[in-house]
Amino acid sequence: MKLSERVSSIEESVTLKLNTLANQLTAEGKKIYNLTAGQLPYRPPKDFVENIRGELDFLKSFQYSPVAGEAQLRQKLLDYFELSREVNLEDVDTTFSTIVGNGGKHVLANIFACLVNPGDEVIVLAPFWLSYPEMIKVNGGVVRILETTIFDAFTPSLAELKAMINDKTKAIVINSPNNPSGIHYSDEWMKDFANLMVDYPNVSLISDEIYFELSYYDPAPTYFYQHKPELLERTIVVDGISKNLASTGLRLGFAIGPSAFIKGVSSYQGHTASGPCTLVQKALEKYDMSSIKEFLNPIKNHLRENSMIVRESFREAKLDKCWYQTTSAFYYLVDFSQCPLMERFKKSADDEADYSAQICEEMIEKYGIAMVPGVSFGVKNCARISLVLPKEPFTEAMSIIVKALLD
Amino acid sequence: MKLSERVSSIEESVTLKLNTLANQLTAEGKKIYNLTAGQLPYRPPKDFVENIRGELDFLKSFQYSPVAGEAQLRQKLLDYFELSREVNLEDVDTTFSTIVGNGGKHVLANIFACLVNPGDEVIVLAPFWLSYPEMIKVNGGVVRILETTIFDAFTPSLAELKAMINDKTKAIVINSPNNPSGIHYSDEWMKDFANLMVDYPNVSLISDEIYFELSYYDPAPTYFYQHKPELLERTIVVDGISKNLASTGLRLGFAIGPSAFIKGVSSYQGHTASGPCTLVQKALEKYDMSSIKEFLNPIKNHLRENSMIVRESFREAKLDKCWYQTTSAFYYLVDFSQCPLMERFKKSADDEADYSAQICEEMIEKYGIAMVPGVSFGVKNCARISLVLPKEPFTEAMSIIVKALLD
Repeated sequence: MKLSERVSSIEESVTLKLNTLANQLTAEGKKIYNLTAGQLPYRPPKDFVENIRGELDFLKSFQYSPVAGEAQLRQKLLDYFELSREVNLEDVDTTFSTIVGNGGKHVLANIFACLVNPGDEVIVLAPFWLSYPEMIKVNGGVVRILETTIFDAFTPSLAELKAMINDKTKAIVINSPNNPSGIHYSDEWMKDFANLMVDYPNVSLISDEIYFELSYYDPAPTYFYQHKPELLERTIVVDGISKNLASTGLRLGFAIGPSAFIKGVSSYQGHTASGPCTLVQKALEKYDMSSIKEFLNPIKNHLRENSMIVRESFREAKLDKCWYQTTSAFYYLVDFSQCPLMERFKKSADDEADYSAQICEEMIEKYGIAMVPGVSFGVKNCARISLVLPKEPFTEAMSIIVKALLD
Repeated sequence: MKLSERVSSIEESVTLKLNTLANQLTAEGKKIYNLTAGQLPYRPPKDFVENIRGELDFLKSFQYSPVAGEAQLRQKLLDYFELSREVNLEDVDTTFSTIVGNGGKHVLANIFACLVNPGDEVIVLAPFWLSYPEMIKVNGGVVRILETTIFDAFTPSLAELKAMINDKTKAIVINSPNNPSGIHYSDEWMKDFANLMVDYPNVSLISDEIYFELSYYDPAPTYFYQHKPELLERTIVVDGISKNLASTGLRLGFAIGPSAFIKGVSSYQGHTASGPCTLVQKALEKYDMSSIKEFLNPIKNHLRENSMIVRESFREAKLDKCWYQTTSAFYYLVDFSQCPLMERFKKSADDEADYSAQICEEMIEKYGIAMVPGVSFGVKNCARISLVLPKEPFTEAMSIIVKALLD
């Protein structure tokens, strides 16, 4: 059975290969600091778990939900969006709607399927979550990547963005707070971005806000549509409970956007998946979304502390050039490019190739540090580490990383 | 925001329109017999629900599963497949694997994405589940429908099938037990189908077996690959817990097929959805699949009784031509074409147009009977009714239907 072209062209995951190596070494008894986690190592809020338990008593919890999700839940999520982002959708000259899917990833994949025609260009701001380009490509779209560097704390240049937009540009994908950089774009940036976007009425905006609740340094994340609410007429916001309720495994994400577009997404979802797990939907329907903040407070304190450990480790080792201040999500992007370690990999002084996969392989084998190579995120000679580990092993891991960077 | 072409071309669901009408009439206080259900009105087995409850205590139940599903669950489902279908995968010259997705529909949609290139033809045997054609079309495939009639109890002609196969034929979709006809193809048919397929080594076979456990008249369903196990090298079997564990809302389906193909499906799922709800996977991992039969016994008795009510209602009304014996799944396809009612819709004696949507609209408005029109299943002037209603209202509904057919 031959795989279709759209699937054969999916790139083999480097992360997967490294994970296999990490597991193999762990099985051999080697101590591995696993810094690859894309999820919080905490249980979801107790209230929410108890809601699931309570819903087990009802027949309806095991039956189909409407394709776009339970009506009450959809309304609740729309209200949550307006309240948390401080926008009033009634001020905008369009009706808005929401759809619930099997996790943020599933919702995003459906959005790309509903938006991208073959040949359409979609601009992705690097560093980016590794599935965006594949989602665009399986629908025949062309991925245009806007690169960034640690010198600007991975914030994209709007002048460069402007230069990339052309008649074929269908959409721009924004992910703030950002995976893998762990920063969110400044309010100033969002304002300038909004002003720029006003000039391109045919470009749709996909705002992946899955880490919105997880910012641990003020000011909190803001969005372009807060500056120019009319942009909401061509914006799809994606959010979910994977990160903010520590529920990656429950697979519930949602999108908010113009009703006509959401109707199309629902139609597509109706033929390709149906609505997500009804049990989880019903439990969420009864959960008080305003208590997310309280749930996340101790977690944010932990992330802030670990971000300080990163800073102190780099400062003490005089690796200032490798450091930038993270503010949100739960990652840090370690930049190898200006470290002694890099010299061992570069084939010449002006070699600009990417060795992130090779470096990460060495990091596991030689130092027992598992991290996700930058090649997966569109950044050269970097690796993503997760800030979720408990303080003690995290401190140990950081001192090993610093030692490796100087090696 | 303009929808992509692949989504704009999805046909508006007639069923949805009729559902809205049914809900509206119910809200107005009219008594509606809802015969549209695509799910069993029973709770899942108690053991299984208690497993979910038990898994709520563990952190891992809320965390990502591997993309293709929990390893132990995948092995269990492979074992279940071999045992229940009485096949030994080790006898076949290929390695097999399984992938778990967000419901049978999601698994099927992924399979089509991984199999169909633009221009490929896929043969679908009518009557068919309404999402197959859309799944094929969103991937650029061409749908070839093999029609059947009540005269053969909706069993496809293999001579006609053979005539449809050509160089562009990528796959054939088989759904036995069948939604919406409520029959499964005979073992003789499966044997002849297997012999035919041996001659077409480039054609893949997608066997949707979601209703496998739900047959209430012997002999039980059999499959082509039991006659020719080598066909498994190019067969993907789809199953799930929606129907056999009355868990449509939990969204867990799975596919079994050659490992190389399943690996591709996993790669696609990894970028478009991830594995399904971990909580449900873990609960199923601990569930004894051999107890499905016991769970379904009373349900099958009920379906058998309702199928007898159909027979008796038609016999008493001398509507023998409208009757055929159902054996599995939980539907019956009411054929209007040879009834007095049809005369009111036909514009001339030789009018062969399809009026199933109009007839179903009248059935709701005039008689309070909600059914799914045949247009959704590729059969003219038919409607699907569900056999799951309790005996008393089902008997009432059947006598109204018979009255309408004679009207």
